[in-house]
Amino acid sequence: MRLDIKPIGVVHSPFKELKDCPLQESEGAHEATIEIYTEYQEAASHIKSGDSMMLLTWLDKADRNVLKTHPRNDPTVELTGIFSTRSPDRPNPIGLHTVKVIIKEDNNKFKVSALEVLDGTPVVDVKPAI
Amino acid sequence: MRLDIKPIGVVHSPFKELKDCPLQESEGAHEATIEIYTEYQEAASHIKSGDSMMLLTWLDKADRNVLKTHPRNDPTVELTGIFSTRSPDRPNPIGLHTVKVIIKEDNNKFKVSALEVLDGTPVVDVKPAI
Repeated sequence: MRLDIKPIGVVHSPFKELKDCPLQESEGAHEATIEIYTEYQEAASHIKSGDSMMLLTWLDKADRNVLKTHPRNDPTVELTGIFSTRSPDRPNPIGLHTVKVIIKEDNNKFKVSALEVLDGTPVVDVKPAI
Repeated sequence: MRLDIKPIGVVHSPFKELKDCPLQESEGAHEATIEIYTEYQEAASHIKSGDSMMLLTWLDKADRNVLKTHPRNDPTVELTGIFSTRSPDRPNPIGLHTVKVIIKEDNNKFKVSALEVLDGTPVVDVKPAI
């Protein structure tokens, strides 16, 4: 069984290459703009400035064959099953990010705080923060 | 662009029909068993009893064409863009659940607390809780 996932938007970010990306939101992540594609715009109608949201992305540069990794790329830390890590390299490279909406720039564009993903990363879902 | 997602496991739950499923973890959700398929078992090697995890599922009974809904199926609440709700009906029906591992039953089976999804629901990712 394979399931198909449809990008519902895209991240516009100052991070153009993987080497520029911080490992965590808390380590130099930057404001970014979330663009929701117009066909899904209606689903974003109630998102407003100040909302805390869970953003789900598809980390399309990931290696989907990795099952174990050294956390934080530190070779002195033991090889760890990737379901116990936040590594983007995993069978389904879904990124999970807590962001705050700073401002709604347009009906389908939101500036958000502290996001650590590459420019052009597909967005696959948005939910209220838990 | 369409992205393919591979189920990495399955939920075994006492909820056999949608009408049995509570709307939220806090409303009568039940223990469930997460089975990780053997080909991904190595990625689960470091999950242990007591761990708090984010479980990502694929809510395969969802209606993917819904963009607005009455939250909690209450017709007196205004129609709301689904990205501001936790409705399973959404373009990409990824379920996001915080669970606690009660016991590792086997190398690829974990009993977890309070999960509100149907028996047979595909699991698509497991991450440490935020």
